[in-house]
Amino acid sequence: MKMAAEHIFGYTYGSAEVAMSPVSMRELEELKISVGFREEDERYLRQAGEVLADQTEQVVLHWRSGIIASIPNLARHSRTPEGEALPDYLAKSNLRFQQWILDTCLRPYDQDWLNYQQEIALRHTSLKKNKIDGVRSTPYVPLRDIVAFIAVINETIKPYLATKGHSPSDVDKMHQAWCKSLQLQLALWTRPYADAKQGLNEW
Amino acid sequence: MKMAAEHIFGYTYGSAEVAMSPVSMRELEELKISVGFREEDERYLRQAGEVLADQTEQVVLHWRSGIIASIPNLARHSRTPEGEALPDYLAKSNLRFQQWILDTCLRPYDQDWLNYQQEIALRHTSLKKNKIDGVRSTPYVPLRDIVAFIAVINETIKPYLATKGHSPSDVDKMHQAWCKSLQLQLALWTRPYADAKQGLNEW
Repeated sequence: MKMAAEHIFGYTYGSAEVAMSPVSMRELEELKISVGFREEDERYLRQAGEVLADQTEQVVLHWRSGIIASIPNLARHSRTPEGEALPDYLAKSNLRFQQWILDTCLRPYDQDWLNYQQEIALRHTSLKKNKIDGVRSTPYVPLRDIVAFIAVINETIKPYLATKGHSPSDVDKMHQAWCKSLQLQLALWTRPYADAKQGLNEW
Repeated sequence: MKMAAEHIFGYTYGSAEVAMSPVSMRELEELKISVGFREEDERYLRQAGEVLADQTEQVVLHWRSGIIASIPNLARHSRTPEGEALPDYLAKSNLRFQQWILDTCLRPYDQDWLNYQQEIALRHTSLKKNKIDGVRSTPYVPLRDIVAFIAVINETIKPYLATKGHSPSDVDKMHQAWCKSLQLQLALWTRPYADAKQGLNEW
């Protein structure tokens, strides 16, 4: 598996620390159907992964410094509650963000992947945000901001998909596969927010 | 305002029957920023609305008969709990679906629009699904299926945006504006599902 760095702090993909997802593989298969995710999309995601592999640092820098940093409402989630910078936290979560791009494109969507989606979901909520990094920051990322920012991610990733000389039609297909995967992941990330048992109120 | 039909059953946009949204206009403005929705996008949405205005019946037919009907998991929400067809319910909700395309493109995103987003949100949940039509169907649409199906809507709308001779670049911009609007609306639709006070468990 391609990695964004040799060691990625807090990246526990596939390890025993990651709990079993409450979502079943059957539910995942149904979600793939609802999202229109086909074998062709898997192939184009692999291609996207090859195109993006040496650009993940630049892409995440674009999202974090080029966009999020200038939206106070979003930037605060990488800062202390008082608004001070947390450079170490930001650096660590940026590296995980980079790896997430690779995982999106190159990992098989199997039980390990499903489990890690739930882990990512929890790390957005008050159940797990800040914990692995041991930082004091906002207690959670509101669900609505996660939903909203997917649109920005989808819009801004496209030019990076076009940097390796693929035809416009292939770029479109890589992009469509990317957008479907993100909506699929988003569906999984909404689960803890909508789980009455958790009783969160983090819209 | 352009309407999909002279009378649309259960379409209460702008009427006194629609309650005030619990989301504030300020939160809406913040969401627009998170989603990257700019003035340019408003302009391209208007253009999209002109392009789609005489195609809404065909588009909704594509989604309902061409896609949803063959995905049992989604098709069941327009049927009885036993799986029998409800043609009258389907026809009524299809017409509202058509009008929603026009509203997405042509309405100003003001207080009325915000209120109706909340109404749409509630009509997906057990709080309001089936009520206005007085039908016996599934009690709610799971949040994950709403999130997922947005990807299908976004993918399939694009060719319809290209039917009126606009340049590929303009079609791309109309499509980007559309995708941002849908993610914005989706963020609003997730609210009742994530509202601890409602205590829903409808992921």
